[in-house]
Amino acid sequence: MADISRRQLFGFGAAAVGGAGLGLGAGVVIARPAGAEQISETVLFHGDHQAGIETPPQAHTTFVGLDLVPGADRAALVRLMRVWTDDASRLTEGRGALADTEPDLATAPARLTVTIGFGPGVFRAAGLEDRRPSWCNPLPPFEIDRLEERWNDGDLLLQVGSDDPVSVVHALRVLLKNARNTATIRWVQRGFRRARGSEPEGTTMRNLMGQVDGTINPRAGSDDFARVVWNDGVEQPWMAGGTSVVIRRIRLDLDGWDELDRPGRDEVMGRRMSDGAPLTGESEFDVPDFDAVGPGGLKIIPEFSHIARARPLAPRERFLRRGYNYDEAPDGIGVSDSGLIFVAYQADVDVQYLPVQRRLAEADMFNQWSTPIGSAVFAIPPGCREGEYLGEGLLG
Amino acid sequence: MADISRRQLFGFGAAAVGGAGLGLGAGVVIARPAGAEQISETVLFHGDHQAGIETPPQAHTTFVGLDLVPGADRAALVRLMRVWTDDASRLTEGRGALADTEPDLATAPARLTVTIGFGPGVFRAAGLEDRRPSWCNPLPPFEIDRLEERWNDGDLLLQVGSDDPVSVVHALRVLLKNARNTATIRWVQRGFRRARGSEPEGTTMRNLMGQVDGTINPRAGSDDFARVVWNDGVEQPWMAGGTSVVIRRIRLDLDGWDELDRPGRDEVMGRRMSDGAPLTGESEFDVPDFDAVGPGGLKIIPEFSHIARARPLAPRERFLRRGYNYDEAPDGIGVSDSGLIFVAYQADVDVQYLPVQRRLAEADMFNQWSTPIGSAVFAIPPGCREGEYLGEGLLG
Ligand code: HEM
Ligand code: HEM
Repeated sequence: MADISRRQLFGFGAAAVGGAGLGLGAGVVIARPAGAEQISETVLFHGDHQAGIETPPQAHTTFVGLDLVPGADRAALVRLMRVWTDDASRLTEGRGALADTEPDLATAPARLTVTIGFGPGVFRAAGLEDRRPSWCNPLPPFEIDRLEERWNDGDLLLQVGSDDPVSVVHALRVLLKNARNTATIRWVQRGFRRARGSEPEGTTMRNLMGQVDGTINPRAGSDDFARVVWNDGVEQPWMAGGTSVVIRRIRLDLDGWDELDRPGRDEVMGRRMSDGAPLTGESEFDVPDFDAVGPGGLKIIPEFSHIARARPLAPRERFLRRGYNYDEAPDGIGVSDSGLIFVAYQADVDVQYLPVQRRLAEADMFNQWSTPIGSAVFAIPPGCREGEYLGEGLLG
Repeated sequence: MADISRRQLFGFGAAAVGGAGLGLGAGVVIARPAGAEQISETVLFHGDHQAGIETPPQAHTTFVGLDLVPGADRAALVRLMRVWTDDASRLTEGRGALADTEPDLATAPARLTVTIGFGPGVFRAAGLEDRRPSWCNPLPPFEIDRLEERWNDGDLLLQVGSDDPVSVVHALRVLLKNARNTATIRWVQRGFRRARGSEPEGTTMRNLMGQVDGTINPRAGSDDFARVVWNDGVEQPWMAGGTSVVIRRIRLDLDGWDELDRPGRDEVMGRRMSDGAPLTGESEFDVPDFDAVGPGGLKIIPEFSHIARARPLAPRERFLRRGYNYDEAPDGIGVSDSGLIFVAYQADVDVQYLPVQRRLAEADMFNQWSTPIGSAVFAIPPGCREGEYLGEGLLG
């Protein structure tokens, strides 16, 4: 059926589509509910890893940072995680949550995933500082940062994604209602990509500047993906199968970018705007040649282009980028409030992510058009089996 | 400072621009990317009527109210309408607009429609007061109103809908950039429904309270639809084939609603929450029996239920409801900023819409959970043929 071929085409980027024997990792098993009329796809909640990371990005994802209320302790966290685990397991299957006051909104999950993260405050509140991964801290400040407090940090993360915007809103409402006694909202970031089905499955997204964004990324289901993303539990045994997420809210100066011509844009990024090919290649997935020199004796991919600075200089300097566009109502003509919710997952923030972020902060031509205005880091606990709750390895 | 040193480092100072080969200038790319695979559906822009009204509602629609800048006159309006018409006709076909700086974002229209409306200010600015339809005015105030200036009125309306959120954002950016000399943004309202494909085609939407919303509506393509929605041009000949729109931003008290039990909710609306059937019927499209009386001697559909008050008491009291959910970031736990962008189209606001709105404002049990916080009325000019521009019948 059409559905079968759609499943087979799942994956990150065209490389995954073309790749033979695409293996879906444990977190991205696509299940279909028994009901024959159910036309909405579901993503398995239970598993070794939390869903929403290896899952091909949905059209909509909302990230919510929460603060624990004063006095919330380990017992309160256990209660919250039990409830959230139960809510998430039901909602992602297309069932109303317990005490769901609008269960009819739960019937079209459209690949709904709920992913939960712990900020430094969780370890403090639970009296478990010794179990905090060493990298679970705010990033150090960078010169390019123009951070606004209202987009920073948080004790807890809720990441709710679905191809259907109504499902995201309904799931979030259930989860937030059930957190009322334990946590308050710190920030809400709503991101979007193309609707499911409006481009061929596996097309790399374009961000609001029109750039093909997400080409170089570990492939879902591969051993490489597992090595880059899933924590091995050596530092903190409870984190085995978990990961970390860095969420940077990066404002994009669309007006300024619009004044740059195509060749200028291509040089800033080191890739062609038209098709995402590296300046030394013919098509999107060609390997960039960072040493190639043009007739004038200059590097074809400029030394200070975004990809020349962002590429790994050591094998460990890699992570999964799974970002989303944002576009909030502008406050006047010419002032758009648009950008990228830049989201990176890696086993270890300090070892994998930080060196790259440092290089970009030091020198990246693209910094002229992009400004980090928010920053947050969370530990993402591993997935859980039926009967367990998320975070049990830490809190239990 | 940091900015200056970066410029010096990378040769981005004005003097260095030419030498660096990064021609900063009004770069304009109009070409459609080669080989773009068109799997996206399109809705015809040209025709007797504007698109976006009889079109089955897309997953996303953003409504923007604009104010004309002081001094904008009939000639300025003609210029703007020419540009917007050209932009809309290209973008809805999946082509970049003229001077589109991100034409690659135009390739997946996903049923993109652009609908343009004129508020009272257009007739004033153009010196055409005598051609203003008599109903093209703000609604009278109602006791239930808690209107906030930031959501009211406007000289121009842009309604941009698509099943793809990126296409809405890109089209709006193009249209708003091209309006910069003529108009400023007054308000932006972003609405959503279920994603295309996550429910069977033609399913009546549920709003964020879980109500089946939109059952009683003229059927697209029917003579009835044409009579209810399209203006006959008797009062204003240029309006033949046009219509009017009332946009009410209605905040929904989800927390309060959640405290009501199912039977209570059913009575407030006069229909079952579970499937939208009238309380006197078995399924959604059964005709409600407003006279039926229950064992206790009371009306089965309560006299002050929403549908008992909203149903037409005269044949002309009908309109097309084509609303959208809204859900903005809440400012704390328990305070959700959610509701309905209630959108009604009718040939004549005063004759068709107002009597119903008056009845609801007088008495409707549902008023306890719904509060109008914004209100705007626009004349929607008829569609145009190739070579014409929208509003030419008025402005030409
Ligand atoms: C709004 C901000 C940003 C935008 C719009 C952006 C855009 C892009 C684009 C278009 C590419 C080329 C295609 C691709 O491989 O995806 C790219 C590559 C990349 N970016 Fe970014 N980027 C942003 C911020 C960042 C940040 C903050 C980091 C990490 C600190 C980062 C890390 C990378 C990496 C690792 C690559 C791949 C480099 C390679 O190996 O070729 N980017 N980015
Ligand atoms: C947020 C506010 C509102 C909500 C959530 C809402 C919801 C509903 C629902 C669930 C129904 C029953 C199913 C249907 O036929 O669609 C309905 C019917 C209707 N509503 Fe509303 N409504 C709202 C405001 C309004 C307003 C402002 C008007 C007009 C002034 C209106 C006019 C109608 C009409 C004409 C019907 C059909 C009545 C019939 O003939 O049975 N509604 N509405």
